[in-house]
Amino acid sequence: MSTTPEWIMIGGEGPESYNQHSSYQRALLEAAKEKMNEAISAKLSLDLISDRFSVADFGCASGPNTFVAVQNIIDAVEDKYRKETGQNPADNIEFQVLFNDFTTNDFNTLFQSLPQGRRYYSAGVPGSFFERVLPKQSFHIGVINYAFHFTSKIPKGITDRDSPSWNRDMHCTGFNEAVKKAYLDQYSADTKELLDARAEELVPEGLMLIFGSCLRDGVKMSETSKGIVMDFIGDSFNDLAQQGVIEQDKVDSFSTPLYIAEEGEIRQIIKENGKFTIEAFEDIIHPNSEFPLDPKILAISFRASYGAFLAAHFGADVMRKAFELVEVKAREQFTRLKNAKPGMQYLIVLRKN
Amino acid sequence: MSTTPEWIMIGGEGPESYNQHSSYQRALLEAAKEKMNEAISAKLSLDLISDRFSVADFGCASGPNTFVAVQNIIDAVEDKYRKETGQNPADNIEFQVLFNDFTTNDFNTLFQSLPQGRRYYSAGVPGSFFERVLPKQSFHIGVINYAFHFTSKIPKGITDRDSPSWNRDMHCTGFNEAVKKAYLDQYSADTKELLDARAEELVPEGLMLIFGSCLRDGVKMSETSKGIVMDFIGDSFNDLAQQGVIEQDKVDSFSTPLYIAEEGEIRQIIKENGKFTIEAFEDIIHPNSEFPLDPKILAISFRASYGAFLAAHFGADVMRKAFELVEVKAREQFTRLKNAKPGMQYLIVLRKN
Repeated sequence: MSTTPEWIMIGGEGPESYNQHSSYQRALLEAAKEKMNEAISAKLSLDLISDRFSVADFGCASGPNTFVAVQNIIDAVEDKYRKETGQNPADNIEFQVLFNDFTTNDFNTLFQSLPQGRRYYSAGVPGSFFERVLPKQSFHIGVINYAFHFTSKIPKGITDRDSPSWNRDMHCTGFNEAVKKAYLDQYSADTKELLDARAEELVPEGLMLIFGSCLRDGVKMSETSKGIVMDFIGDSFNDLAQQGVIEQDKVDSFSTPLYIAEEGEIRQIIKENGKFTIEAFEDIIHPNSEFPLDPKILAISFRASYGAFLAAHFGADVMRKAFELVEVKAREQFTRLKNAKPGMQYLIVLRKN
Repeated sequence: MSTTPEWIMIGGEGPESYNQHSSYQRALLEAAKEKMNEAISAKLSLDLISDRFSVADFGCASGPNTFVAVQNIIDAVEDKYRKETGQNPADNIEFQVLFNDFTTNDFNTLFQSLPQGRRYYSAGVPGSFFERVLPKQSFHIGVINYAFHFTSKIPKGITDRDSPSWNRDMHCTGFNEAVKKAYLDQYSADTKELLDARAEELVPEGLMLIFGSCLRDGVKMSETSKGIVMDFIGDSFNDLAQQGVIEQDKVDSFSTPLYIAEEGEIRQIIKENGKFTIEAFEDIIHPNSEFPLDPKILAISFRASYGAFLAAHFGADVMRKAFELVEVKAREQFTRLKNAKPGMQYLIVLRKN
């Protein structure tokens, strides 16, 4: 079974569920770290590591994952510098970390939880990462952690039951071609803008490191464990509507500003954008690759991830009720989940052209 | 009578009193703006105005004053560029504003109230301005608005009744030499560290613009209207102690992390630090130079400024009671206030050596 940790990062984590992920997530981060070290060692030009080195995290949220991610990058850069110059990076390099997220992000919490003893200067950069948020040539390595699947908005028609592109299910898992096209078009346009913006903000030859999850080519969302659970969520809200707990309209008009693309789709978007060369696009292989296939933990995981989204639309009580049903469905259809096709956890390394 | 607007900027402004200052403050800002335009026009090297120009506000608080201050600087830089190159700054220059304040500052409010239509990139920089908060050569113009009189802490002995440097009054207005020396030593050490940090963070030939208030040489704090009102505040708390509303100890152990220096003291600190040349140290003359000499407005003004400090120590209720007494004292001793010696509102322009 594939692992789909982006749900951990999206938000809405309650303390109760957070701990249940965290050991799994740490294992994933370790695996990601190794891949990233290799990428920085092999792909980062030594010329870029001079007196000032800036790392930018786009979609940083309010911590604490961002601190681990940026520290890993800094460690890798220092390591490369130490090995290739024989000098002590602390003597020569000042690091700066630029933490970016929406203006409504909780930067106060982020700033107040900055790690003690860090060896970098910090700045918070408010604004949507689909637009320019920094001056030209502001940073040397940018990172996007499980936020590269966002769209800037829900495409037109998606939440309108009378539209041909109405999304009947939670996450375009049903593969209605009109829905898929609407999402892919939106995702493609948004991601090209994101890449345009980063290309201007990066120094020449700078790198973007993008961690996320996608579909392997030819695999449908509905065939993956993630798609299956998303369908359980949709079904659960539909059940609640049938029971009269909520209006059917409420369910029909819900969708998410996310698109889980196929690897080939992502490659094509980057190619069409033309500002970056794909230096690597690889699976993150990790020791803990089998996500615990437990209905309870699955329900908690998805609630941790999508709970905030769903509660905003349906209310917190209804959201909680729905996830009780999700757990039941996961238990009942356990075989289907067990036989799901794998998704893909990727690290994409882009070099600015 | 002198005007002492730093109390407006320090914090603890309630909405009720804020509006009473704001027209006065706007007039002061206009006067400051004119002085600053002259300074930027005359002292800023045109070579510094290239494709990227960064302005840093140290002690920015959570707005809105910082937005006016930094926009004035950007306007002046654009103006100079337009006049001296004949080119449109918008075609060639990207501005960035670095908003610095303590990590506990409300950056969320700051970010969410960033002006619509601004033509600069924004970043929040958390940390004490007595230390380095930015990498080397990060900005071209730094500004400190009415925060240059802070010390990093209250000097040792000041709040200890048994110490020779115990501060009997609110704000070392009584000119006990030991108190004055303790504060001046602290202020001098702190300000030199502040200047060291800014010197590293500034680009070569970059400017610091410092707005604040000080004492004219030879004038004692207790002779200025500000000192007189500070004494009223101290007397009022002592009255409340005598009435049994609060403990005398509570009053005796209060002091503020501020030192209002003489002009000559400030000049000497900058000279001893040696990292900057004083390009200008001038009075801000403004049309509205006579602060409305009204006991009620005075009480409200000081409450707006020091209320938060005082409430943290004495509690909000006691603080409010004290300011009722302050208003009475200001009314009773109106002649003393009217005959106070003038303070000084300054703009200091420093160029990095």
